[in-house]
Amino acid sequence: MKLHHAGIATRDVDDLASLFADLLSTPVVHEERVDGMRVVFLEADAGGYLELLEPVADGPIATYLDRHGPGIHHLALSTADVQASIDRARELGVEPIDDAPRQGAWGHEVAFLHPGSTGGVLLEFVAESH
Amino acid sequence: MKLHHAGIATRDVDDLASLFADLLSTPVVHEERVDGMRVVFLEADAGGYLELLEPVADGPIATYLDRHGPGIHHLALSTADVQASIDRARELGVEPIDDAPRQGAWGHEVAFLHPGSTGGVLLEFVAESH
Repeated sequence: MKLHHAGIATRDVDDLASLFADLLSTPVVHEERVDGMRVVFLEADAGGYLELLEPVADGPIATYLDRHGPGIHHLALSTADVQASIDRARELGVEPIDDAPRQGAWGHEVAFLHPGSTGGVLLEFVAESH
Repeated sequence: MKLHHAGIATRDVDDLASLFADLLSTPVVHEERVDGMRVVFLEADAGGYLELLEPVADGPIATYLDRHGPGIHHLALSTADVQASIDRARELGVEPIDDAPRQGAWGHEVAFLHPGSTGGVLLEFVAESH
């Protein structure tokens, strides 16, 4: 698998996107509102992304910010077959949050795994189309 | 810049390295003891890494685990010139932890930035040689 993106929870996506674009030479390549969030993807070299997530309604990111404050929220790895990766996780004793692929930000097919069984790391599988 | 690695704090690096190697198809490519830590790098496709950090003495990772528990600790981006990236950060009002490049794990030249000025994200610059 390839490290597809790191997801970052923030209360001000415009401010952080502007800073990271300048600081890390990662231009904004995609923006949308989805699932009660404003989401911005910045692209690094070699096709790795930073995904900035700002809540505009109650939901997991709003809850995360209230509990932990802003910062790195999850890591996403791209895989050719999200369902096969979910099945493999279950074989290894890792509990999926999503039993089947669902549509996430940027139209990607995604699935998350419970961080309790992956060393405290919230992992996401992404079927990469871009 | 390129997303070089995500650093993950853990209390059992062998266990987590074994799980991630199986779950994410990221083989172990480097192990060492450095600065009071056991460090394991796993390599994903396209040359992105996961860096697992287990403390073997008091230090920043032991403190992090006591305060936050295990999980994603920092993001590292590779840059051609670490000193120039530090200088650029300072111009943008971002406070460096390291005023000059120093030697980090795997012999890399590295420098960290204060998360307080980067949206709660502990960022590391790495001069990539591998």
